[in-house]
Amino acid sequence: KINGDRLWDSLMEMAKIGPGVAGGNNRQTLTDEDGEGRALFQRWCEAAGCTMGLDTMGNMFARREGTDPDALPVYVGSHLDTQPTGGKYDGVLGVLGGLEIVRTLNDLNIKTKHPIVVVNWTNEEGTRYAPAMLSSGVFAGIHTENWAKDRVDADGKRFGDELKRIGWEGDEPVGARKMHAMFELHIEQGPILEAEGKDIGVVTHGQGLSWTQITVTGKDAHTGSTPMPMRRNAGLGMARILEKVDEIAWSHAPHAVGAAGHIDVFPNSRNVIPGKVVFTVDFRSPEHAVILDMEARLKAAAEEICRDMGLDLEMEKVGGFDPVTFDSGCVTAVRNAAERLGYSHMNLISGAGHDACWINQVAPTAMVMCPCVDGLSHNEAEEISRDWATAGADVLMHAVVETAGI
Amino acid sequence: KINGDRLWDSLMEMAKIGPGVAGGNNRQTLTDEDGEGRALFQRWCEAAGCTMGLDTMGNMFARREGTDPDALPVYVGSHLDTQPTGGKYDGVLGVLGGLEIVRTLNDLNIKTKHPIVVVNWTNEEGTRYAPAMLSSGVFAGIHTENWAKDRVDADGKRFGDELKRIGWEGDEPVGARKMHAMFELHIEQGPILEAEGKDIGVVTHGQGLSWTQITVTGKDAHTGSTPMPMRRNAGLGMARILEKVDEIAWSHAPHAVGAAGHIDVFPNSRNVIPGKVVFTVDFRSPEHAVILDMEARLKAAAEEICRDMGLDLEMEKVGGFDPVTFDSGCVTAVRNAAERLGYSHMNLISGAGHDACWINQVAPTAMVMCPCVDGLSHNEAEEISRDWATAGADVLMHAVVETAGI
Ligand SMILES: NC(=O)NCCC(=O)O
Ligand SMILES: NC(=O)NCCC(=O)O
Repeated sequence: KINGDRLWDSLMEMAKIGPGVAGGNNRQTLTDEDGEGRALFQRWCEAAGCTMGLDTMGNMFARREGTDPDALPVYVGSHLDTQPTGGKYDGVLGVLGGLEIVRTLNDLNIKTKHPIVVVNWTNEEGTRYAPAMLSSGVFAGIHTENWAKDRVDADGKRFGDELKRIGWEGDEPVGARKMHAMFELHIEQGPILEAEGKDIGVVTHGQGLSWTQITVTGKDAHTGSTPMPMRRNAGLGMARILEKVDEIAWSHAPHAVGAAGHIDVFPNSRNVIPGKVVFTVDFRSPEHAVILDMEARLKAAAEEICRDMGLDLEMEKVGGFDPVTFDSGCVTAVRNAAERLGYSHMNLISGAGHDACWINQVAPTAMVMCPCVDGLSHNEAEEISRDWATAGADVLMHAVVETAGI
Repeated sequence: KINGDRLWDSLMEMAKIGPGVAGGNNRQTLTDEDGEGRALFQRWCEAAGCTMGLDTMGNMFARREGTDPDALPVYVGSHLDTQPTGGKYDGVLGVLGGLEIVRTLNDLNIKTKHPIVVVNWTNEEGTRYAPAMLSSGVFAGIHTENWAKDRVDADGKRFGDELKRIGWEGDEPVGARKMHAMFELHIEQGPILEAEGKDIGVVTHGQGLSWTQITVTGKDAHTGSTPMPMRRNAGLGMARILEKVDEIAWSHAPHAVGAAGHIDVFPNSRNVIPGKVVFTVDFRSPEHAVILDMEARLKAAAEEICRDMGLDLEMEKVGGFDPVTFDSGCVTAVRNAAERLGYSHMNLISGAGHDACWINQVAPTAMVMCPCVDGLSHNEAEEISRDWATAGADVLMHAVVETAGI
C-alpha cells in the first residue's frame, strides 16, 4: 500500500505554487508558476533516485530503472498545469500518484522488471493554448511539433517561445520513446462515483470531443444613435448560437453535453454594438455519430442565424478527438487491482479528455479514477478526500506493478 | 465664415495621437495618449491667445476674453477622448470646432462682449470608466467628485489616480464656473441627416439612457464531465437575457433601442462552463416612460431566466439620464444661424448622450449636429466630409457669437 499521508502532503506542497484566489490554483501552462512546479517535481523525483528526461515539447520523464535491461518502461502520470481558476487535484494527483509509487517501491525495496517512468505532460488543460492535451498529442503523432509550437495564447505569445522562456525545452525528440504500457490516475471530475458510493472508477472508454471556434462579425456601431433595423449585432448573433448549442446538446442527453466556456467580445465597450465575437463551442459524446450530428446541426444553425441577421460567420475546428476505447489488458489490470485491494469499483466512461486518450493510440493504456466532491472540477473549490486519493494511488500502484512485473 | 481647411488640418493632426488599428483612434480617457492630445490642444489654444484653466476633474477651459468684464462666458466644446476603436470626429470636432471659432475671430479681429471658453470635458465616452459624460456630470452636480474619482477601470485603476498620473489634475474646484450658455457641435452618429440630405441638425432633444450592469453567477464546472442537468451555466443565462433585451427594445421601435456592448465571461476557458458573466445593457429612448418600461421588463425577464436556471442575479444601474429638452433660446440661435448662412437644416433628437445633456441642467445649452457617412460612429471607419465639418463649425460660430454679443 502507498503512503497516503505522504501523497497528500506532496499534493498540498505543490498547491502552494501558483495559488488561486479561492483556495485552488492558477498554474497555467508555460507560466513562471508552471516552471516552479516542474522544478519541485524534478527535485522530488531526483530525491527518489530517478533520472529526469525532457523532450522538445517540455514533457518530463522521471525514470526508475527496472531489472531487465531490454524491457520497455511502464509509464504512469498526468499533468501539472491547471486551469486559470482550477483545482489542486486535476492532473496533479496523477503525477504525484506516480511519484508516490516510486517512493513506496523504494521504501519496500521492490525492483520491477520493466522500468517505471513518471511523466508530466505539457499543456493538458488547453486554456492558454488550444487544443487540450497538446503535448501528449504531439508525442502520439496526432499533431506535428511545429504546428504545436506555433500555437499562440490570447496575448499572441507562441507556445514554442514560452516553453524556451521558462527554460523547460529539452533536447530529446518528442515521441521517440517506446512504452510497454501507460496508466493515468485522475479525479473523475463528474458526479457518478460519489453518487454510486464507489471508491474506484475503472475507465473503459473516453468521450469524444469537438471544439469549434466561431467568429461572428457584424459592425461596430453606436448603441444609442444606430436605429434597430440598421444594426448588425455580433453579440446577439452569439447569444442565439449559444441557445442552439444548448438545445442540440440536450437533444442527445444523457449521451452528450455542450457549452461555450470561452467568449471574447470586441471592442467590448458599453456603448458600442459588438462588431465581432469569438467563442468556442465544446461538444462531447461517447458516440462518434452523435458528435458528427451535433457538429452538423451547429453549422446549419449558425449559418441560418447569421444569414438572417446579416452577420459574417467563420467556423474553425480547434480541437477534437474521437471516442476512446482503452486497452482491455490494462483495463483488466486496473479492475484486478481494485478487486484485490478490496476497493469498491465500477466501470466508467471518462467525461473529460486526458493525455491517456492520445497515448492509447501508441501504447496499451488505461485510467484509474477516484471520486471528487459534488463532481466539481475546473473550479477552485474542487475537492477530494485523503482516502479517495489513497485508494486511487493504491490501485494505480498495483496495476502498474502487475504490468511492470517483479 | 470659419476656415474649413484649417479646421480639417487640426482634426487630422489630432488624429495622429493614439491611432487605432483601422484608420480611427484609440485615445481612451486618462491614457498617455489622452495626455498627449490635451497637450496639443493646450499649445493650440495658447497660440490663439487663450489662457487655460484646469479643474480637479481634468476638464480644460481655454478662455478668450470679452469686452465686458462682468459678462459670463459662452462655453463651446465637447471631448477629446475616444472609444477603444473610435473615430476621428466623435467629440474632437466639437472641441476643435470651438478652437476654430477663436482662431476665426482672431483673424477677423472681432471682439465679443462675453468671453468665449473652449472646453474639453474629461471621460465623455464612458468605456474605460462608466458612466459616460462623467466629468461634465460632476460639473453639473449630478455626481460627487469623490464618487467619480473612485471609479475603476477593468484593470482596477482608479480614475483619480490615473488623472494624477497623466498630470492633468488641476486646482480649480469643479463646477465653480458660471456659464452664460454652452454650445456643443457633434457628428450625428446616426443616419438621419445624411438620409434627409440636410447639412445641419438643430438638436432640440436628447434621448434618455439607462445602463444596467448585470452579473449572472452560476458555477464554474467542467464542460466535459458535468452532466447537463447539473449545470449552472452563466453564459447561457447571459445569452437568454440578451435575446430579451433585443425583444424589449424592438417592442418600442422606432422609439427605443437596446443592446449590450460590454460582456466579460469568467473564467473564460474553453473547457469551463462559465461561472460568472458581467455585462451591461444599454437602453435608450426619447420617452422617459419607455425607459422605465424597458428597465422593468428587463428586471422581470432576467429574474425569471435566472430563477429557472438556478443562477444568481445582480443588477446595478451604472449610468443613466433622463430625456433632455435643450434650451429654446439656444436652440433658436442654432436654427437662426443655419438659416442665415443658407445651410439646409432640420430638427433632431440626439440618439447619443453628450456633455451638453448634463450642462443643460446648469446653463442654457444647445447642440449643432452635422451628418456622418452611413450614420456610422463608435467605429474606426467613422467618416465625415470637409464640407459637413465646415458647415457645422460655421453654424456653431454664428450661434456662439450671436449669444456672446459683439
Ligand atoms: N481532464 C481535463 O480536464 N482535461 C482537459 C481537457 C478537457 O477539456 O477535457
Ligand atoms: N456621443 C457619444 O458617443 N457619447 C458617449 C455616450 C453615449 O453612449 O451616448
